[in-house]
Amino acid sequence: MQKLLYGAAYYDEYMPYDRLEQDIQMMKKARINTVRIAESTWSSYEPKEGVFDFSHVERVLNAMEQAGIGVIIGTPTYAIPPWMAKAHPEILAVTAKGRNLYGPRQNMDITHPAYRFYAERIIRKLLEKTAHRKCVIGFQLDNETKYYDTAGKNVQEKFVKYLRLKFHDDLDALNREFGLDYWSNAVHAWEDFPDVRGTVNGSLGAEFEKFRRTLVEEFLAWQAGIVKEYCREGQFITHNFDFEWRGYSYGLQPDVNQYQSARHLTVAGADIYHPSQSRLTGLEIALGGDIARSLKGGNYLVMETQAQGYPDWTPYKGQLRLQAFSHIASGAGSVLYWHWHSLHNAVETYWKGLLSHDFEENETYLEACQVGREFEKLGGHLINLEKKNDAAILLSHEALTALKWFGIKASAAGHGDLEYNDVVRFVYQTLFHMNVECDILWPESENIESYKAVIVPALYAVPDSLLERLCQYVENGGRLFVTFKSAFANENVKVSHKIQPHILTKCLGVKYNQFAFPDKVRLSGSVLENAADSDLDSAQSAKDFMELLTLQGAQPLAVYEHSNWKGYAAITRNDYGKGSAYYMGCMADEAVLRNVFTRLFKEAGIFLPPEYEAGVAVKNGVNQEARNVHFYLNYSDKECHVPYIYKPGADLLTREAYGNGARMRLSPWGVRIVEES
Amino acid sequence: MQKLLYGAAYYDEYMPYDRLEQDIQMMKKARINTVRIAESTWSSYEPKEGVFDFSHVERVLNAMEQAGIGVIIGTPTYAIPPWMAKAHPEILAVTAKGRNLYGPRQNMDITHPAYRFYAERIIRKLLEKTAHRKCVIGFQLDNETKYYDTAGKNVQEKFVKYLRLKFHDDLDALNREFGLDYWSNAVHAWEDFPDVRGTVNGSLGAEFEKFRRTLVEEFLAWQAGIVKEYCREGQFITHNFDFEWRGYSYGLQPDVNQYQSARHLTVAGADIYHPSQSRLTGLEIALGGDIARSLKGGNYLVMETQAQGYPDWTPYKGQLRLQAFSHIASGAGSVLYWHWHSLHNAVETYWKGLLSHDFEENETYLEACQVGREFEKLGGHLINLEKKNDAAILLSHEALTALKWFGIKASAAGHGDLEYNDVVRFVYQTLFHMNVECDILWPESENIESYKAVIVPALYAVPDSLLERLCQYVENGGRLFVTFKSAFANENVKVSHKIQPHILTKCLGVKYNQFAFPDKVRLSGSVLENAADSDLDSAQSAKDFMELLTLQGAQPLAVYEHSNWKGYAAITRNDYGKGSAYYMGCMADEAVLRNVFTRLFKEAGIFLPPEYEAGVAVKNGVNQEARNVHFYLNYSDKECHVPYIYKPGADLLTREAYGNGARMRLSPWGVRIVEES
Amino acid sequence: MQKLLYGAAYYDEYMPYDRLEQDIQMMKKARINTVRIAESTWSSYEPKEGVFDFSHVERVLNAMEQAGIGVIIGTPTYAIPPWMAKAHPEILAVTAKGRNLYGPRQNMDITHPAYRFYAERIIRKLLEKTAHRKCVIGFQLDNETKYYDTAGKNVQEKFVKYLRLKFHDDLDALNREFGLDYWSNAVHAWEDFPDVRGTVNGSLGAEFEKFRRTLVEEFLAWQAGIVKEYCREGQFITHNFDFEWRGYSYGLQPDVNQYQSARHLTVAGADIYHPSQSRLTGLEIALGGDIARSLKGGNYLVMETQAQGYPDWTPYKGQLRLQAFSHIASGAGSVLYWHWHSLHNAVETYWKGLLSHDFEENETYLEACQVGREFEKLGGHLINLEKKNDAAILLSHEALTALKWFGIKASAAGHGDLEYNDVVRFVYQTLFHMNVECDILWPESENIESYKAVIVPALYAVPDSLLERLCQYVENGGRLFVTFKSAFANENVKVSHKIQPHILTKCLGVKYNQFAFPDKVRLSGSVLENAADSDLDSAQSAKDFMELLTLQGAQPLAVYEHSNWKGYAAITRNDYGKGSAYYMGCMADEAVLRNVFTRLFKEAGIFLPPEYEAGVAVKNGVNQEARNVHFYLNYSDKECHVPYIYKPGADLLTREAYGNGARMRLSPWGVRIVEES
Repeated sequence: MQKLLYGAAYYDEYMPYDRLEQDIQMMKKARINTVRIAESTWSSYEPKEGVFDFSHVERVLNAMEQAGIGVIIGTPTYAIPPWMAKAHPEILAVTAKGRNLYGPRQNMDITHPAYRFYAERIIRKLLEKTAHRKCVIGFQLDNETKYYDTAGKNVQEKFVKYLRLKFHDDLDALNREFGLDYWSNAVHAWEDFPDVRGTVNGSLGAEFEKFRRTLVEEFLAWQAGIVKEYCREGQFITHNFDFEWRGYSYGLQPDVNQYQSARHLTVAGADIYHPSQSRLTGLEIALGGDIARSLKGGNYLVMETQAQGYPDWTPYKGQLRLQAFSHIASGAGSVLYWHWHSLHNAVETYWKGLLSHDFEENETYLEACQVGREFEKLGGHLINLEKKNDAAILLSHEALTALKWFGIKASAAGHGDLEYNDVVRFVYQTLFHMNVECDILWPESENIESYKAVIVPALYAVPDSLLERLCQYVENGGRLFVTFKSAFANENVKVSHKIQPHILTKCLGVKYNQFAFPDKVRLSGSVLENAADSDLDSAQSAKDFMELLTLQGAQPLAVYEHSNWKGYAAITRNDYGKGSAYYMGCMADEAVLRNVFTRLFKEAGIFLPPEYEAGVAVKNGVNQEARNVHFYLNYSDKECHVPYIYKPGADLLTREAYGNGARMRLSPWGVRIVEES
Repeated sequence: MQKLLYGAAYYDEYMPYDRLEQDIQMMKKARINTVRIAESTWSSYEPKEGVFDFSHVERVLNAMEQAGIGVIIGTPTYAIPPWMAKAHPEILAVTAKGRNLYGPRQNMDITHPAYRFYAERIIRKLLEKTAHRKCVIGFQLDNETKYYDTAGKNVQEKFVKYLRLKFHDDLDALNREFGLDYWSNAVHAWEDFPDVRGTVNGSLGAEFEKFRRTLVEEFLAWQAGIVKEYCREGQFITHNFDFEWRGYSYGLQPDVNQYQSARHLTVAGADIYHPSQSRLTGLEIALGGDIARSLKGGNYLVMETQAQGYPDWTPYKGQLRLQAFSHIASGAGSVLYWHWHSLHNAVETYWKGLLSHDFEENETYLEACQVGREFEKLGGHLINLEKKNDAAILLSHEALTALKWFGIKASAAGHGDLEYNDVVRFVYQTLFHMNVECDILWPESENIESYKAVIVPALYAVPDSLLERLCQYVENGGRLFVTFKSAFANENVKVSHKIQPHILTKCLGVKYNQFAFPDKVRLSGSVLENAADSDLDSAQSAKDFMELLTLQGAQPLAVYEHSNWKGYAAITRNDYGKGSAYYMGCMADEAVLRNVFTRLFKEAGIFLPPEYEAGVAVKNGVNQEARNVHFYLNYSDKECHVPYIYKPGADLLTREAYGNGARMRLSPWGVRIVEES
Repeated sequence: MQKLLYGAAYYDEYMPYDRLEQDIQMMKKARINTVRIAESTWSSYEPKEGVFDFSHVERVLNAMEQAGIGVIIGTPTYAIPPWMAKAHPEILAVTAKGRNLYGPRQNMDITHPAYRFYAERIIRKLLEKTAHRKCVIGFQLDNETKYYDTAGKNVQEKFVKYLRLKFHDDLDALNREFGLDYWSNAVHAWEDFPDVRGTVNGSLGAEFEKFRRTLVEEFLAWQAGIVKEYCREGQFITHNFDFEWRGYSYGLQPDVNQYQSARHLTVAGADIYHPSQSRLTGLEIALGGDIARSLKGGNYLVMETQAQGYPDWTPYKGQLRLQAFSHIASGAGSVLYWHWHSLHNAVETYWKGLLSHDFEENETYLEACQVGREFEKLGGHLINLEKKNDAAILLSHEALTALKWFGIKASAAGHGDLEYNDVVRFVYQTLFHMNVECDILWPESENIESYKAVIVPALYAVPDSLLERLCQYVENGGRLFVTFKSAFANENVKVSHKIQPHILTKCLGVKYNQFAFPDKVRLSGSVLENAADSDLDSAQSAKDFMELLTLQGAQPLAVYEHSNWKGYAAITRNDYGKGSAYYMGCMADEAVLRNVFTRLFKEAGIFLPPEYEAGVAVKNGVNQEARNVHFYLNYSDKECHVPYIYKPGADLLTREAYGNGARMRLSPWGVRIVEES
């Protein structure tokens, strides 16, 4: 990137009256240099089948080009026009709930040839009109693509072919590997393969989800292929990836293998939404950013984030600015709001933009103007920021999916409520509060060995090869941290019939074959020190799930205190080869994990910053002038004071100088960015 | 009406043995003068297609006529016989959940011609047998008619024709007004109109609900037309309207525009069910009564109310009587119980009648006898009571429906739980506790200007013309009270792109373009005085939703106390023309609203009665002898003492005289009715 | 039985590798003498239609025979192979939710002739291979058979024929008895009979459930007929009945009339699952055991119970053993775990067996070895134990079903949450805590009169004949205890139109026709003494539901204390003939019921053991050597000391002698079994 991209999604199509001129004036005032257009409004561009009308697109391009504002063209394929559903109802996906009705977006079968036919045509027509334009800086393929639970006959036929390939046409192998003999589900002729929507077999069910993640990748690759035909040098191709949604961006997106899919892009992009007001913590911005950055191992684009959004998101003074610099501090090359103006109709009327429904300047817009000015001023120091992290977290879709089938807290009474992403957030949040930044790894990653410490939450379903590799990593001097529910099953969700945690037993030096839900089980041991002074009951207890570990060479860092479970270890450390490996056999309080991490990082030689006041996060990077940049982000409504611990530098915004050990004041929801001299 | 109607629904069809004689004897003892029959038992009258058997009806008519008991004939069209569903499964409505199964009542498509054919025939056959009978005093059309979510192809075709008419065949106008361009939903050929059951567009969805409310009106008008052919002078035509159901009559019925529908009746009717025992407050009787009375601007019939009902409704001693006079005090001309006896089978076995399953005299029946005697004695003083209220609440189906699509507490995480009727009950309950009686207005009402004060809760979706009219009302000297979430969108649920609260800004003197959910936001200002002495946290806080008001001439009555929202007003008052207008930008405690209302009513010159003991309600009316009548209703299990503040009069029941200022004793759940001399 | 059967379900089909030899060695170590095989794996035995492969079965039989381990053959019909669903999708049951998908077990229409054709063939093929084998000791028909909500057209046609038979083709009689005239549901031609899945008529709905229970019985009888053809002398035929499932075996199974169905078996069998760890109370083992034992009035087989199961079930030390002897103490002839090993795939991966996934010896397996040794040692003293109980509880499917339609706590707002089995458990748990053992009776039981006391919980729907019989029982000297919600409706769920509790009024000496939900209603009276010293509010209050009883000769044991309900009785006792009858008109605390039961049992001459420490249960039986055996079971983690109150005897395990009055020490979760000398 040449500069920080700053802007918003812009929909001329939705405007109640022609206000393009006024909007551009207001954008210029806010130093907006980028808009994203076109990804949502196919029915406006192809009002009838084969009839095209790009007048909205062209007038926006003309105006933006004149104003010097860059444009990202989104292909409008994630929401189909009514005429298509009417003529081809078979395009609407069949899911576990039956055939979709027309109405919502993302209701189609993304594999359907008729859909593909129309999608390709509108993409080509749109790109013919736009790709060559000077103002067009890049392209977004589709939007938040997922597989939308598509499970119709055609998809299932494709799945069976996929299985035949995977198992080399050997049904017995499939029956055995998936355990289909259970409850008489074994299939002995391919033509007898049942509707997989009804399956209760976790291996088969998880495989179907994995298969459908490949459909998403194939779809994005297909679109990328088309777009590349129109792309000129310097124009980027990205996608707007999203995350597991729990009213905000919660964790790893279950339905897309973003790591594989990102190979077809020139730059990764994502939308990140997060709690706000008194619940703004920076966690989601950091986690989403770390995932997005790690997809292609470099900067990424924030394609969407909230301006005002819903009433519980209306930002407090300072928060919009804090959020913007938070994204940059994670390595983002853009902050693009969703969206410019608030809608006067339709389902997202209250997902408010920079402008409220009245288009007047408001508190949020005015703060966006400040952000724009500062981006313009500091952009050269912050663009193409390089992040150099020593720690990494290994995430896995296979584990996530498998734990949807086999809940960590599942009992005979039901599925329980502790999911994979909860464990991920538990380890991530602890790092975040320790101000230890990290990258994200995937099972496919080639650079696992490059990290001083690797953190592995709940890697439930995993191929032996990866487990061997992790052991090798430790043997070679790496530092590994693994939580409960790891290594239990292979990538086909077949539980190992050997020792647990299976191959990791080697490097972890523990084993178990029983587990329980803790009921008043206290922890004791060295890592409990200082772990809790206020809420003893909670902080010093095992939580949610506990494995009954017996030592095979490891030293116990914590053991269970309970009349029946006494004698089993809870948290352990093991020397293995040149490295060491930690295991956490139960869920526990963050304070406990922090103590474990402290030991781990000291061993790994990872720098541990001091404990700042609550809410203060520090992020670091190296800018394109090879200077270290330190972001101080105050996620609290209190004024904070923190020591500056790096080499002398100056605040990029105020030019105040900071020597090592200097005391820095952070205003509520405040930001300081210090560049080393 | 000639007299207070007192009675019950009577079902000879359901009797386990012939006990008509005994029932009539028990009715006579209870001074019952009216029964309602026939509305539920089509399959008894037309056991096979085209075969009719009115023997139950005729024997009841004969017996009632002889006993001097009036009969209301209900047309039996709300529950179809099995043979009809078997021969014409297409009559069973297709809803969002698919085709209905036979079994429940109200499962049919009320627009279906085949259903209409059979319905008309059974109505005519029934009326031929009954309408001319001396004892027949009136007719009830169908029962609790709604549209039952009918959404089949035929209904949707009708809807598209309705849209073509509404938008003069201009699809672009429709797309623009409803914002269908959003997410590519714009329709560019009428034949492409998608199944509206899938829509996520709030404007289209709300319009479909509005359209289906017209189906209900058309259905009732059609039945009224048939019934009128048989009606003689003096026989009334009514309907049994009901309310939003939350286990009892909660608020405005979403699915029927009762105001429009009531135009086809000669007298309004409704059923009112309410919590009982320690939860009997009188609120539902008052609210339901005020709505029913305002439908045609006069007396109304209570077609159904509970005798015993479910175990949580079995009345305490005195409650049945208190309830009966509560209805009368609201302007009812009847109290008809549902129902005479308790059923020995079927779904409503525990919706017990005056008689339990054993047909013996019981506590409830015995109290009904007392009520009957008192009705007979006092009827002449209470019949055709005229209510003269200075305050009115404006209710709107468009607002209700729109807030179902756009919840007041909706966030990115979900819809929230504060609904239109909750806000309605909030303002109504405050009035009720202040003993200020009110009428109900609708957007279509012609008499808005006749009230000293008009109260407008959450009028979210509203045509400009009504907003202009409200401003004019204030300008001419009216007193207006408006809550948050008013004037935001037009009648098509299109949000204004101008200032908010849109046109009302003129008379309210405030504006806003941001809002939030309060999180520890305290209120301060003059209206907070005495608003809370016990529960400070709750009573002095903004609740649920808050608009960030800036003053445009108004004076603040309350402002927000919060680090970030400081400086915005919460509750305001504005002089406008000869009148004044109050705005409440957030939800708050009832005590706060009471203080606002106190100011409003003082300005409006509305009489404010003293604050009585908790649970005491006073209602007033003018009887047909032009005398003021005052009802003192004690909704509590405590003996209360209240001052009599009106002109001297006498208790109609005990003949005790009360001078102005006299102290009146009310026994637990007791009633006194004082007629001025 | 010759010996206590001890073992597990064994699935060679699911093994990840051939380990039959190792498993048998481990079984022998655990003294396992029985395995159950084959009931779940049809698709392994008939991989393609008409192609059979019993190699797994035969190799297991060979190995077991050689090892001297008995085998129970289960017919594999409760889970159909994929090819069957593919070729005959019509076999998949149509339920209220539509046609089942393939995937789960128990998804078929058990009445379907095509299913029956294939089922009979696989049964015969399997039995041909196995029945003659020496090691085969018996057969299990199908598994946990129910009707799986089958409600397709064929089933409904059968139901109509059943109704024609029941009502002698008289539709008027049916309409009258079921009250179908309500809401116009009366059927006047058999061909018009509507889809019963839509009915809201409780009588019709309950009859459909009753009809479908007969389908289960007919199915089991049909299988029994086939199996008998292959059965040799000494081989038993059983079934694995189960219970209402609430995450564990909660109460009477609603969908099967086990009493009728058991007539087709030679011995009753059941699976019993229960909470464990700190929630192990013995209640479910006792209740399930008492039901199973009473089915055929003798010993029964525990076909399945948990070894480890889910993490909340992993047994504490001692619990597996305590559980095993608990089953025996209730009269079980076997303890068979589900299952031997833990599965490496599929839905029940976490329903762990004796062995964990790693097949290693673990704590649970080691304790099972102890149990096996003790069973072997004591078997001769414990086999064919005879239970001689003086009290019995009468259970009724008709009552259970009817109270699903008419919830005890149903109100106009919803169904409420107090179900039949909750009341059953309330009375059962009180007995259990009093250490008074009981048998179970059904309406069809012939031995009602043989008990000193009969306890009747919530017998809501019941034929007059049974009520007359209960009165006669009391008249002849019996002692009867009846709860609220009894006798209210007949067996067709038609409420009596006479006095309540209908015919029981005679012997109970009370009547009522009104009821309420208690809201701060205290109880007072003699049975409240000592009923509560700690939690006064709860323990001395009426709960959930209260009938307003007036005395017709009975004496009040408790009355309601409440401003409005004062004067009504709550709990009563009545002399009737030579016996007496107690009535409990409301739900109350267990302490209250205990006081009532104490009086009842004293009158009945039933021995009341002393009140032991909390958690201690004592069960008794007479062994085949005609000696009394007393089981002391400590369901607590505390060491307890209890007096030994029986004739002198010795601990069968330790040979310690106990004289009358001796003090016995029970270790946590400990067991002692004393055989009288």
